[in-house]
Amino acid sequence: MSITVVGSVAYDSIETPAGRRERCLGGAATYFSLAASYFTDVRVIAVVGEDFGPEQEAVFKARNIDTGGIEHTAGKSFFWEGSYLENLNEAKTHNTELNVFASFEPKIPDAYRDSDFLFLANIDPVLQRRVREAMPGVKLVAGDTMNYWIKDHRPALLEVLKGLDILLINDAEARMLAGNNNLVQAARAVIALGPRVLVVKHGEYGATLFHSSNPKGRKEELRTFRAPALPLNEVVDPTGAGDSFAGGFFGYLASQETLTPASWRHAMYYGGVMGSYACERFGTERLQQLTRSEIDKRFDVFREITHLD
Amino acid sequence: MSITVVGSVAYDSIETPAGRRERCLGGAATYFSLAASYFTDVRVIAVVGEDFGPEQEAVFKARNIDTGGIEHTAGKSFFWEGSYLENLNEAKTHNTELNVFASFEPKIPDAYRDSDFLFLANIDPVLQRRVREAMPGVKLVAGDTMNYWIKDHRPALLEVLKGLDILLINDAEARMLAGNNNLVQAARAVIALGPRVLVVKHGEYGATLFHSSNPKGRKEELRTFRAPALPLNEVVDPTGAGDSFAGGFFGYLASQETLTPASWRHAMYYGGVMGSYACERFGTERLQQLTRSEIDKRFDVFREITHLD
Repeated sequence: MSITVVGSVAYDSIETPAGRRERCLGGAATYFSLAASYFTDVRVIAVVGEDFGPEQEAVFKARNIDTGGIEHTAGKSFFWEGSYLENLNEAKTHNTELNVFASFEPKIPDAYRDSDFLFLANIDPVLQRRVREAMPGVKLVAGDTMNYWIKDHRPALLEVLKGLDILLINDAEARMLAGNNNLVQAARAVIALGPRVLVVKHGEYGATLFHSSNPKGRKEELRTFRAPALPLNEVVDPTGAGDSFAGGFFGYLASQETLTPASWRHAMYYGGVMGSYACERFGTERLQQLTRSEIDKRFDVFREITHLD
Repeated sequence: MSITVVGSVAYDSIETPAGRRERCLGGAATYFSLAASYFTDVRVIAVVGEDFGPEQEAVFKARNIDTGGIEHTAGKSFFWEGSYLENLNEAKTHNTELNVFASFEPKIPDAYRDSDFLFLANIDPVLQRRVREAMPGVKLVAGDTMNYWIKDHRPALLEVLKGLDILLINDAEARMLAGNNNLVQAARAVIALGPRVLVVKHGEYGATLFHSSNPKGRKEELRTFRAPALPLNEVVDPTGAGDSFAGGFFGYLASQETLTPASWRHAMYYGGVMGSYACERFGTERLQQLTRSEIDKRFDVFREITHLD
């Protein structure tokens, strides 16, 4: 089943202990769609400026990603500059220029309307909600957010959460959203806000899935699944690892005929696999060049380093 | 096979979000031996003061732990006071009184000399080395240490590492010891210092085992195994969780006739199980009252939340 993703397509200037790159192609929707493209058809809704040309378009096309929903407007694309010099687990932002993103009005191409899966990457919750409401027929909706929206745009975010099946966020975001430092209690509180599945990403330590079978999720014990991250000999650039996790996770789910408990567990592993690949090179370099057989080999490594027998 | 452990038997005053306890029985050797006692015979070498009486002795006796090596001297036992009010993952130390521990000279009872396994809990590396050398016949030696010894007593610690089969430390300690922030590279560097197995504890995220089959471990790929920690609905008191992990891990290994790759993986899970129990109540409360069947049930939960099929 195909996925429509709405989010940022951007340029990133990145410095890590491994070096520096100027204006790599980046953005959450870019990482997500490249990662998901190894599992299913992906369609992107985004906005770019005049600096986004055929070379960038080709990155999407090479992975058969539908770019019909990428709107080209006058001005420059979203730009982010950051570094990870002291701590590879946390980006230090030096500069953010919204540029054309400041007046982004997502438009959904007619050809996207039969998508069964929808991913709302980390953007203004007002826009996330608008896209969600414009696609009432989707079967499964997942989304991401960040500390800024949790802190300063909470009412709009709470509206988005009501329309989500799955929320993917990191530890700090889950604790902030729930106002609770205990991960299990925080998960229960987040699930009571709408999503029946919460995936909490722990960076280099993997991720935990909390699953409620009760749509309101208030009373019962949550089902839990924990997936590792691969200990990497070198993290070249962690930018986009979380979005790539989301792409692998949601892409795998979209590739399944029916969703069983085992599908969710496998999806967590594929998320970890795609996140680990994202870190191996700068920007999207590694994600552009994978094969499904490489991905499945790494999946087997994940199994090997975690399973008892 | 029986384990001899040398380390602290102490009193702890602890404050956590769940409350406060004054002068609980604590110390690394206490947590370790209680956790290991569910798997094998344990013998303790430590020193206590006049404040350690029959009530404390009974805690060990109830678990059949040999206390013949606990020396009683004039003065007060080691005392630690700390809190976890802001962050359950990191203790804030308010007070440390070495007391009788300041002049600790470990003495090994003759009855301990046939122990096959030796655990050197976190104490002065000079003492760790002395105990190690006094028990040349042991088959497997594991040890722990902390930032203070790594920073300020490095030469003595390096001598200890040469005599260890297994080192169990946390992330920050592994990175500090290796002078390298990348966990895989740090593991390789630590293994080159002596131990052929390194277990890095990640607190609430579990632990990773790095295993070299080459005694010097410099060239080849390390074998890796990652075990989860159980997401706990309430962490009452994390004091001693790392020592309890070590007790479960090493206790399980000591209970095995031969050590296969599967033994090491199971040991990592049992370590996580015992660490999770330690957190459920203040001090050693929970560790005193377990049954092996409870432990094995939780082991099955660990398997369930991590295995794909």
